[in-house]
Amino acid sequence: MFHFNNIILASGSPRRKQLLKQIGIDFTTEISGIDESIEFDLSPERIAKYFAIEKARKISIKFPKELVVGADTIVVCNKKILGKPKNDKESFDMLSMLSGKTHKVITGVSLQCLDKSINRTFHETTKVTFITLSNSYISYYINTYKPFDKAGSYGIQDWFAVCVKKIDGCFYNVMGLPLAKFWKEISKL
Amino acid sequence: MFHFNNIILASGSPRRKQLLKQIGIDFTTEISGIDESIEFDLSPERIAKYFAIEKARKISIKFPKELVVGADTIVVCNKKILGKPKNDKESFDMLSMLSGKTHKVITGVSLQCLDKSINRTFHETTKVTFITLSNSYISYYINTYKPFDKAGSYGIQDWFAVCVKKIDGCFYNVMGLPLAKFWKEISKL
Repeated sequence: MFHFNNIILASGSPRRKQLLKQIGIDFTTEISGIDESIEFDLSPERIAKYFAIEKARKISIKFPKELVVGADTIVVCNKKILGKPKNDKESFDMLSMLSGKTHKVITGVSLQCLDKSINRTFHETTKVTFITLSNSYISYYINTYKPFDKAGSYGIQDWFAVCVKKIDGCFYNVMGLPLAKFWKEISKL
Repeated sequence: MFHFNNIILASGSPRRKQLLKQIGIDFTTEISGIDESIEFDLSPERIAKYFAIEKARKISIKFPKELVVGADTIVVCNKKILGKPKNDKESFDMLSMLSGKTHKVITGVSLQCLDKSINRTFHETTKVTFITLSNSYISYYINTYKPFDKAGSYGIQDWFAVCVKKIDGCFYNVMGLPLAKFWKEISKL
């Protein structure tokens, strides 16, 4: 009843792997290696979906029989898109910008299987509110956790949890995969 | 800077242990074994705090030098308090009641140290909205996960995540300990 075969996760994110395991999905992973630095004049939702589609497509071409899952998570604050920080300074600037405010986390997800003509893409948005972060909190976090592989420069599943006042929406979307919506879509296939 | 010594968690909950570890707290655990079946004519918030206080107090008397953390989580739907289900039928009834609705999860937390006259108690409330649960989803979940040690009969951190449409508030409060508020309170000591 709740079993899906031959799923490939087109992502190297340890969080996404952990989430698929949590809901009992058997899968393998392949890293797409697409260029995520391209900038577009599109809405954040369309950008997240664009990268999710590109990641899934790149792997789907190599494995046309399998169901490939691509996903991309972005953080939006004051209409500015925050990707992964390149260094300590970018990380500090991002967390300073997010301090005491509510921002949006958008994950785009694409499900593709060439042989079965499956091509579904959707997104989920969650609002996240931080406490006011002191400089010492921000420095402690960057030095200890090196959040350079995370959009917005934080991981809601590590120590940074103590800085998250509230969320409004799907928690797992903030970790990188909106589990409720993902399950609903995959169950339709 | 972010270090607390000699903390005792007055709880056997594996979720609470995991959460304290997540935020880097060193602790040991002692199980209070208090009777949680007592019923009161009090508000849900006061009941959660009452049990948190009782758990912490029972351990604090034995270890008067240490800081003891007691916590109690309850689920409230349609003004009815849902504790831990005793069997399959109670579990089925609880999940059927929660299906498609928004309910409240309240965790009371008590911090106590006899020798230092520390006695702080607070609570946090999170709203949780479920998708509409089919009977087959409910049966699958009960049979596979046996959620009998969980208030409201579900664990937001296991497969059941796919049934949680959204939350409004602190996610970790639903798991059993409101990390942001807990950190804020413990930092004041």
